[in-house]
Amino acid sequence: MLTTPSSLDQRFGLSRHVVLPGPLRLDGGALLAPVEIAYETYGTLAPDGGNALLICHALTGDHHVASAHPRTGKPGWWQRMVGPGRPIDTDRFFVVCANVLGSCMGSSGPASGDAATGRPYAMAFPVITIRDMVRAQALLLDHLGVARLAAVVGGSMGGMQALSWAATFPDRLDACLVIASTARHTAQNIAFHEVGRQAIMADPNWSGGDYYDGAPPAAGLAVARMAAHITYLSEAGLTEKFGRRLQAREQKSFGFDADFQVESYLRHQGLAFTDRFDANSYLYITRAMDYFDLAEEHGGLLAHAFRAARARFCLVSFDTDWLYPTAESRSIVQALVAARAPASFVELSSPYGHDAFLLDSPELDRVIGGFLGTGA
Amino acid sequence: MLTTPSSLDQRFGLSRHVVLPGPLRLDGGALLAPVEIAYETYGTLAPDGGNALLICHALTGDHHVASAHPRTGKPGWWQRMVGPGRPIDTDRFFVVCANVLGSCMGSSGPASGDAATGRPYAMAFPVITIRDMVRAQALLLDHLGVARLAAVVGGSMGGMQALSWAATFPDRLDACLVIASTARHTAQNIAFHEVGRQAIMADPNWSGGDYYDGAPPAAGLAVARMAAHITYLSEAGLTEKFGRRLQAREQKSFGFDADFQVESYLRHQGLAFTDRFDANSYLYITRAMDYFDLAEEHGGLLAHAFRAARARFCLVSFDTDWLYPTAESRSIVQALVAARAPASFVELSSPYGHDAFLLDSPELDRVIGGFLGTGA
Repeated sequence: MLTTPSSLDQRFGLSRHVVLPGPLRLDGGALLAPVEIAYETYGTLAPDGGNALLICHALTGDHHVASAHPRTGKPGWWQRMVGPGRPIDTDRFFVVCANVLGSCMGSSGPASGDAATGRPYAMAFPVITIRDMVRAQALLLDHLGVARLAAVVGGSMGGMQALSWAATFPDRLDACLVIASTARHTAQNIAFHEVGRQAIMADPNWSGGDYYDGAPPAAGLAVARMAAHITYLSEAGLTEKFGRRLQAREQKSFGFDADFQVESYLRHQGLAFTDRFDANSYLYITRAMDYFDLAEEHGGLLAHAFRAARARFCLVSFDTDWLYPTAESRSIVQALVAARAPASFVELSSPYGHDAFLLDSPELDRVIGGFLGTGA
Repeated sequence: MLTTPSSLDQRFGLSRHVVLPGPLRLDGGALLAPVEIAYETYGTLAPDGGNALLICHALTGDHHVASAHPRTGKPGWWQRMVGPGRPIDTDRFFVVCANVLGSCMGSSGPASGDAATGRPYAMAFPVITIRDMVRAQALLLDHLGVARLAAVVGGSMGGMQALSWAATFPDRLDACLVIASTARHTAQNIAFHEVGRQAIMADPNWSGGDYYDGAPPAAGLAVARMAAHITYLSEAGLTEKFGRRLQAREQKSFGFDADFQVESYLRHQGLAFTDRFDANSYLYITRAMDYFDLAEEHGGLLAHAFRAARARFCLVSFDTDWLYPTAESRSIVQALVAARAPASFVELSSPYGHDAFLLDSPELDRVIGGFLGTGA
């Protein structure tokens, strides 16, 4: 086992990378070996190991949760939430955030080298599940000497991982915080992801996934991102932000340029995404999300997923989130209550739809700080 | 002027095609000539010409409203609504339905021959508006000797045309029936259409629109249709119809085939669409819808659009339609009331989202029959 780079100073976030020998047995039956994991840590692990907190990232996220991205220089994606004196207080917690299995930011995924061939896996990478991501995180925690988590925290796909943690390793966590998430992907959720996958696969550059020596399917990936991005925003939020306002020009062009600001914004979102994300990873991770149905994994009854859980739970939803609406969080709470697990639930008001969990929200800060006992 | 095929028997729907010399001055400033219009008529025009009723079709519709499609043999898209003794009673009304300008079912559109070059217009076809479609319909009615409409009826984009009729030719209609529609496209509406356009334009076969001699951008058009199709259905409808049910196989494939029924359904919708629709037409018509903002055309105040209207209005929305939600219909009714136009409004309950207006709905039949005085 190999860890690079190492550092004695864990007070600042440091991008690390570990190659664990594996093999990791996956839900689909395959064995994955080795298992690479890119991660960051913040704060110091207490001598008794009791202060570890795992943050799980969303579909296109990464492990740079609270420190600048090494390549883009952009601040961490949850910088406002994680740090000394912040709701997820790194003076108190030893915070770990790992890039999920299947992604393209350093953990094993379709762009990783396949030891058997010496070339990228591409579509030979095994299809993974949310539970497989969680199992890989557990391997990492073993490696870090973390037997038990004080808390696992995640929004969106991160929330699915948090729920899967409670179901898969009930003895390893004390608290579970699930934000803007769901216990299963609905037909509409699957439908939007399928549009994105078909957009990628329709791009001739995709070439059955074997594009790593040539031009990537950027056009298809951009369309996939555009479609998904609409689901992250509320109708009201889009209206507030763009409405029908035109671009710089004052009049409609009567052409097919981006006349409306919302068109230009979406095109930019699509294009910018292709600079930082691998199309095959997008296929694999959306597949994992679509496969996710925690009840199905437990005989069809969601409460059964939490039978052995020892954690206390907190669920947070946003009233304008139509991707994972409040009703999904509420049904999770009902299952937790049925399983006699301590659960609190709050629906926050925000005009920003699903994306609200990533945006500045004093209410969310208070809920998280309150649940983790960090005050605020 | 040339009409083919002609028939003396107008009791049965007959597909006709007329080439009007034009020119038609378009909102974008261009002059279109000649103006081809494909249409069907049902019933007989009364000697006083007072029983004409125009049906306006939706984005991907056609003029075969109540008779079998000549190529596919499929029944008309509103067969259940239009016919002898039906709510739109062809024993009473002389019903006209014309393929919209910009489409690909026989009316002038990007696939039509450009007289100037002898080749298809492709992207040289002028960008059109909903009002341009309405002006072309007015030309057709002139040709048919219909001075005045007893009613204009339309759902979705057809409803936009009906509203535009009331604003553009206030003296030419007595009744206006607008179903599941809106007076303007919102940022979210535009965003979904932009995803579709980008999917088409990302397909290398699109070739800047010049694909009529080769393979069309079918893959891009299929993705566009898939994205749009999701907006036509409600989340609850998708859950009822598909939920998370798998295809024939009993287990997940852990691959990228269509595992879920909803994936297979969407793929089929996308693919089937490419057999019947032209990708450039999709670009032009979605653009026309995105440009549509009836208030903007009238100094920013929707009520002003109806100042000269002499028709009575009926607005119908469906409670699960999230593409053009009830609030949009309600704001139209408020503008009508402000303009002192007689207006009735009903929100119908349906699990099927936007598509409900095309489906079997005894309540909708009753509303339409009641408004048109055909009983039911």
